[in-house]
Amino acid sequence: MDKLRVGVLGATGMVGQKYIQLLENHPWFNVTYVAASPNSAGKNYSEAVKGRWQMASPIPSEVSSLNVFDANKVLDAIGKCDFVFSALELDKAATAALEEEYAKNNIAVVSNCSAHRFTPDVPMIVPEINSSHLEIIEQQKKSRAWDKGFIVVKPNCSLQSYLTPLFALQQKGYLISRVILSTMQAVSGAGYPGVASLDIVDNIIPFISGEEEKSEKEPLKILGNIRDGKFVDANSIKFSAHCNRVSVVDGHTACVSFEFADKNNKPTKEEIIKIWREFASVPQQLNLPSAPIHPIIYTEEENRPQPRKDRDNDKSMAVTVGRLRECNVFDYRFVGLSHNTVRGAAGGGILNAELLKAKGFLHS
Amino acid sequence: MDKLRVGVLGATGMVGQKYIQLLENHPWFNVTYVAASPNSAGKNYSEAVKGRWQMASPIPSEVSSLNVFDANKVLDAIGKCDFVFSALELDKAATAALEEEYAKNNIAVVSNCSAHRFTPDVPMIVPEINSSHLEIIEQQKKSRAWDKGFIVVKPNCSLQSYLTPLFALQQKGYLISRVILSTMQAVSGAGYPGVASLDIVDNIIPFISGEEEKSEKEPLKILGNIRDGKFVDANSIKFSAHCNRVSVVDGHTACVSFEFADKNNKPTKEEIIKIWREFASVPQQLNLPSAPIHPIIYTEEENRPQPRKDRDNDKSMAVTVGRLRECNVFDYRFVGLSHNTVRGAAGGGILNAELLKAKGFLHS
Amino acid sequence: MDKLRVGVLGATGMVGQKYIQLLENHPWFNVTYVAASPNSAGKNYSEAVKGRWQMASPIPSEVSSLNVFDANKVLDAIGKCDFVFSALELDKAATAALEEEYAKNNIAVVSNCSAHRFTPDVPMIVPEINSSHLEIIEQQKKSRAWDKGFIVVKPNCSLQSYLTPLFALQQKGYLISRVILSTMQAVSGAGYPGVASLDIVDNIIPFISGEEEKSEKEPLKILGNIRDGKFVDANSIKFSAHCNRVSVVDGHTACVSFEFADKNNKPTKEEIIKIWREFASVPQQLNLPSAPIHPIIYTEEENRPQPRKDRDNDKSMAVTVGRLRECNVFDYRFVGLSHNTVRGAAGGGILNAELLKAKGFLHS
Amino acid sequence: MDKLRVGVLGATGMVGQKYIQLLENHPWFNVTYVAASPNSAGKNYSEAVKGRWQMASPIPSEVSSLNVFDANKVLDAIGKCDFVFSALELDKAATAALEEEYAKNNIAVVSNCSAHRFTPDVPMIVPEINSSHLEIIEQQKKSRAWDKGFIVVKPNCSLQSYLTPLFALQQKGYLISRVILSTMQAVSGAGYPGVASLDIVDNIIPFISGEEEKSEKEPLKILGNIRDGKFVDANSIKFSAHCNRVSVVDGHTACVSFEFADKNNKPTKEEIIKIWREFASVPQQLNLPSAPIHPIIYTEEENRPQPRKDRDNDKSMAVTVGRLRECNVFDYRFVGLSHNTVRGAAGGGILNAELLKAKGFLHS
Repeated sequence: MDKLRVGVLGATGMVGQKYIQLLENHPWFNVTYVAASPNSAGKNYSEAVKGRWQMASPIPSEVSSLNVFDANKVLDAIGKCDFVFSALELDKAATAALEEEYAKNNIAVVSNCSAHRFTPDVPMIVPEINSSHLEIIEQQKKSRAWDKGFIVVKPNCSLQSYLTPLFALQQKGYLISRVILSTMQAVSGAGYPGVASLDIVDNIIPFISGEEEKSEKEPLKILGNIRDGKFVDANSIKFSAHCNRVSVVDGHTACVSFEFADKNNKPTKEEIIKIWREFASVPQQLNLPSAPIHPIIYTEEENRPQPRKDRDNDKSMAVTVGRLRECNVFDYRFVGLSHNTVRGAAGGGILNAELLKAKGFLHS
Repeated sequence: MDKLRVGVLGATGMVGQKYIQLLENHPWFNVTYVAASPNSAGKNYSEAVKGRWQMASPIPSEVSSLNVFDANKVLDAIGKCDFVFSALELDKAATAALEEEYAKNNIAVVSNCSAHRFTPDVPMIVPEINSSHLEIIEQQKKSRAWDKGFIVVKPNCSLQSYLTPLFALQQKGYLISRVILSTMQAVSGAGYPGVASLDIVDNIIPFISGEEEKSEKEPLKILGNIRDGKFVDANSIKFSAHCNRVSVVDGHTACVSFEFADKNNKPTKEEIIKIWREFASVPQQLNLPSAPIHPIIYTEEENRPQPRKDRDNDKSMAVTVGRLRECNVFDYRFVGLSHNTVRGAAGGGILNAELLKAKGFLHS
Repeated sequence: MDKLRVGVLGATGMVGQKYIQLLENHPWFNVTYVAASPNSAGKNYSEAVKGRWQMASPIPSEVSSLNVFDANKVLDAIGKCDFVFSALELDKAATAALEEEYAKNNIAVVSNCSAHRFTPDVPMIVPEINSSHLEIIEQQKKSRAWDKGFIVVKPNCSLQSYLTPLFALQQKGYLISRVILSTMQAVSGAGYPGVASLDIVDNIIPFISGEEEKSEKEPLKILGNIRDGKFVDANSIKFSAHCNRVSVVDGHTACVSFEFADKNNKPTKEEIIKIWREFASVPQQLNLPSAPIHPIIYTEEENRPQPRKDRDNDKSMAVTVGRLRECNVFDYRFVGLSHNTVRGAAGGGILNAELLKAKGFLHS
Repeated sequence: MDKLRVGVLGATGMVGQKYIQLLENHPWFNVTYVAASPNSAGKNYSEAVKGRWQMASPIPSEVSSLNVFDANKVLDAIGKCDFVFSALELDKAATAALEEEYAKNNIAVVSNCSAHRFTPDVPMIVPEINSSHLEIIEQQKKSRAWDKGFIVVKPNCSLQSYLTPLFALQQKGYLISRVILSTMQAVSGAGYPGVASLDIVDNIIPFISGEEEKSEKEPLKILGNIRDGKFVDANSIKFSAHCNRVSVVDGHTACVSFEFADKNNKPTKEEIIKIWREFASVPQQLNLPSAPIHPIIYTEEENRPQPRKDRDNDKSMAVTVGRLRECNVFDYRFVGLSHNTVRGAAGGGILNAELLKAKGFLHS
C-alpha cells in the first residue's frame, strides 16, 4: 500500500512535535509537509525547532530536513499532502477560518484544535465511542460545497480518562445521570513554555482556563446524536469538573464519582470491571495501527493508576482505571488516567485519521 | 500569669517536632517534658533528633537540652507537666491505652492521634465548630473515675480545608445534604520518611490508606450532638472523599462540590462569600493566642488558593477558600486549602489546648 | 528618626515584589514611590500586580494603593523619594542609561541590575566584604558632575554562597589561588514566568545564560582595589564555575573546591571552621537592621546545608556552609548555600542601602 | 542459538526489577531463576513484587509466574541457570560471601554490588574501557580452585557520565592528570523507598553516603593494570567528586573540569569532540546486543544534556556529553549524563554478560 502524504500544521509547537515523533515509521502515513508561523517559514524543520525540540527521541531524519511553510498560505500545501493534522496555535477565529480554507482546497483536516469542536456539522470523534458520527461528513461537504476536503476534530485532552469508561457502561445499557469529577493534569497539557516552574514546584494550581467548561460540555456532543444534519447534545447526563494542574510531566488523572439513571438497574462492581476489561470497539475491530489492544485497562492495585507508572500502557493509548469502589454519595467512584499528549492529543488525532482512512474518507 | 507546663508525647516525630517549634515562646505554655520511644529515652532532645530535625528553624534552646523520657513510662511524667500533647506514633490500641493511662494519672491529654476519635465520650474538637462538645469532659471523667485527667482529640488533617467553610453555612441556617470532594494532600502529612520520592517526582498517588474513611466519617461526629452522654453523628449530611497525594511539601487542598438540603432556601454566591468573610467563632471571641483573626479567608483571584502561596495565611491557621462557583450537578463548588502540619496537626492541637485553658479545663 | 522615602524601580517584577515585601515595617525606609513599565503606569500597585503577586505574604497595605509611575519618566520621581532601589527589567543599555538619569536628578540608585557592575567607578558591594569600596562614590559624583545622586550596585545572586566564606579565609591571611565550583540554583533566580515547568520537573538544566561568566568575573572586582579612581580586579585568584538550574524554589547551593596560594601556610579544618564561625564584619559592627548576626553559619550535619531547610537561617541573610573536608585535588572543599532572592537580591540591596545610610551617603 | 539460562539474585529490588524488565526478549539470555530474601521465597514473582513493581512496563509474563527462591540457598540454583546477575541488597560481607558461594558452585556471577569491587583478582568492567581486564578470570578461578564459576563486577552508577569521555581522550594519547567534578544524581539511585520526598521536593541533598569515595577510587582500578595477577590502580590521574541528590527520577549528570598531564600536548576543542564522536570500542566491534551504537553522543545545544530529555539516548546506554568549553582553572570542562539504572546498573550488567558470552567465558 502506498502511504498517504500527511501535512502537520503548527508543526513546531508541542503537539506538532508529538505528531512528528509519533508518525515516524507510521505504516499508513508519511509526513511530507510541515507548516508553522511565518517566522519559522523558510527554515528547515530542525532549524525551526532548534532549542525547542521537547521530545525524548531525536527529530526523525526524514522530517528534519523538510522545508517549513507558512501555515497561513494554504495554497502552498496543494499537491504536497493528501490531508493535514491541525495543531495550530492561533486564536480560535483564525484557526477556524484557516482550517476551513484547507478543507475548501480539497485538503481534509484532522484537527486537535478547539475552534470547530462546537461547529454543528463537524464531528468531534473518540474512535472507541462515536465513530458513527463520521456519517455527517457527507452533509458537511455538501452544505459547504467542498469537494474532497472536510473537517474532523478531536476533543480536549482532559476527558479521555473518564469518558471512555463511562461510555463503556452506557453502551451496556447502564445509563449514567450525574458525574462529579476532579482532574490532576500534567504540565505538558499547557504546551511550552506553558506553566511557570514557580507555579508548580511545591505547589498545585486549582485552575486551568476554559478547561472545566470543555470537560463538561464536550462529552455531551460526543455522546449526542445527529438530527437534521446537526449534532444534538446528550441531555440525560451531566458533568461537573474541577480541573487542577499538578507537578507531573505527562498523564492526566481524574477522580470520578457517578450515579446511574435507573436506581433499579445497576451493575455490581464485578460487572463493571468485567465490562471495562472486555470493552473493545471500532478501532480494535478494524485493527487500526495506533489502537490500543485494550482501550480500558483495569488495575487491581490499591494505589494505581499513577501517571508516571501507567501513562505509557499499550503505546500510551489505553485509559488505565483503578480503585472502583462504592461512593458514599453517588453510586460508584474510580480513578482514571490517560496520556494527555498521546491519547489526549497527537495519538488521538492519528487514531482519528486511521479511522477515516479505514472508513474510506481519506485518499491519495 | 504563670505558664502551664506542657509535655509532648512522640516528641521526636514530625508532628512532635512541629509542636516543639510552635510552642517556642508560647504565651501560656512551656515545654518541660518530652517523651518518645524507648530508644530515644535517656538522650537529650537535640541528640535524639540528630539528623531527623525537619523544621526550618533551629531546635528551641530550652527544649534542646531536655532529657527525653520513655513515653510508655507514664509515672515519669508525674510532677513534670500539667498536661500533654499526644503525637504518639504507636499502633491504635497501644496509643489508646497509653493515652488513658496518662489521663488516669491526672495528666490531661490533648491528642493528635486517631485512637480515641471514635470513643463515644471523647470529644473531637475543631474550636471554631464544636467547642460546646467539651461539656462531655465531666461525664468522661466521672464514668472513668478520673480525677483531673481527661482526653480530648482533634480530627484528621484532611478535613480542615472543607469542614469549616461548610459549617459556616450550616450555622447560618443553610443545611447541606451532600458533599463530594477530592483532596490533593502534601507529603508532610505522611510523616518522615513517609512518601518515597520515586512515588512523587513526576507523579501523584491516588490513594492514602484510611484517609477517605476519616475524611467522610469524622465530620459527622464533629457536626453531631451529645445524647445520653455519648456522641451521636450528624445524619443529615453525607461526604464522599477522593484522597490523593501530590508533590507539595505542606498544605492540603480540596475541590468540593456540595448541595443544600432545602432547594427553596439557598444563599447566593455573594451571600456565601459574605458568610465566610464574616465568620468568627469561639477562638476569635476568646482571643486565643493561636486563633486566626479570620478563620476563613476568601480570595477572589481565579487561580487561588495555592498551597505554597496561601498555606501560611494568618499564622498558617486560616483556611483559604477560593473559586466559589455554581456546580453543574450540585449547587456550588469551591477550593479550600489548609496547612496540614499546623492547622491540621500541631497548631490545631495547641488551639484545642488554648480553648481548654480558657474554658477552665486545664490547671497547673 | 524620620524614615527615608524609598522608590522601587521595576516594582512589579519578582525582585521588585521582594523589595516591597521586605521593606514592610523597615525601621529606616518607607516605600513612597513605585515605578514600572509604561503599561503598569497609572494603575495602583495592587491592580498592577494582580495575578502576578508571587510573595507568600499579602501586599503591604501602604504600598497596595500607591500609584504606579512609568519608570522611564525620571522627573516623576523627583520629590517623591530620597533614593531608589533599581530592579529594572530592561536591556542592559537602557538600564544603564536610566539609572544614570536618576542619579543625575539627585536620586541615588541602589541597584540589583547588572548594567553598571563593570562600570569602572561604580562600586559593586557585598557589605561584609568590601564596604571600603564606597569611597569611590565621591569620585563618581565629581567626574560625572552629579550633586546628590550616585550609583551603587550589588553582584549576581549566584556568588553569595561561596564568596563570603572564601573572603573570610583571605581576610585572615590565607590567600586562595584557585577555585572550581558548581552551583545548583533555584528557579526563582530566573524571575517569573522564568523557567518552564517542562524544563524542571524530573529534570535539571546544566546551563544558565551569562551566569558562569558573572560567577567568575564579579568576585574579582569585589575582591579588587581602587587605583586612580577606578577599580582594578584581584589577580591572584581564579574562579571556574559550572551553573545549573534545579527544582528548588529559593536558595542557591554551591559545591566548592579551592586551593591556597601558599602551600606552606594552610589552616586546618578546625581553624577554617573557627574563622567562619567567628566571622563578623562592618554590617554586624554597625548593627544594620538587615544584617545577619552570623554572616556565615557552619553546620556539622553531614547532609547539610539543604536549600529548603537552611535558606531562611538568620532572616534569610546568612550563608550556611557545611561539609568542609579535604579535596582530593585541591586543598579543601565545602558546600555553601544562600537565599537568592533575599541575600542574593532584594535583601542584599537593602543591606547595601542600610550601609550607605549608616555611612552618611543617603539623606532625606 | 540456544539462549543461556539466567538467574537474578535480589530480583525483587529496584535493580533486580530493572534486570527483569531489560531481559524481556533478550536475544541471548532467558530468565529462568529468580531469588530474593527469605520472606519473598516461595511466592511467585508477581506476588513477591505486588505493590512494589516500579517499572513502567508490566512484569514480563514468563517471569511473572516463576517461583522465587531464597538467594541464600545457593544449591537451589544449581541446574536452573547458567549464570546469575547479582543485585543483592545485603550488607557487604554477606554479599561477598554469597557471591563466592555461587561461583564455587559453578555459577558465574555478574554483579552490580560493591562487595567485590576492590577484591584484587576481581575485574571491575566497563566494556568500552577495560574489557582486557577479563583476562584475570583464569587466574581468579585457578587461585580459588573454582571450576566454571567466577565473579565479574561493574562499577558504581555515578561514574559512567564522566569516565568514558575521559578515557576516550586518554586512549588517543592525551593523558589527564586532575579532575574535579560535581554530580547531580537521580533518586532512583537510592532504590525504593530510598530518598524521602520531604528531602527532595523543593530541595537538594548535597551528600550521598559513600558515593564520593566510590566516584574517586573506582576509576583508578578501571584505568589500572594487572600486575602479578592483581590489579594495580592508575596513579597518574586524580579525581575529586562532589555528589548531590536532586529531584530527578533517572539520569545522573556530572559537571566536570579536567587538566591534561602534558601542557605541551593538548587537543583543541574540535579535536576532543571529534574523538568523542568517533569513539567506539569492543562492545561496538563485537556488535553486542545492548551496546550503544555511539557510546558517547556529543550534543551542540547550549543547554544539554538534560536528564529527562537525554537519558534514553541509544537504548539508555549512551553517555550524552555537552557544553565542552575551556575551564578558567583547568584546561576544559563539560557536562556528562548517563542513565543510572540502565547504563549505570542493570543495562551495564547485561552488557558485561554479553561481553563475557562473546569472549567465551559463559556457557550453557
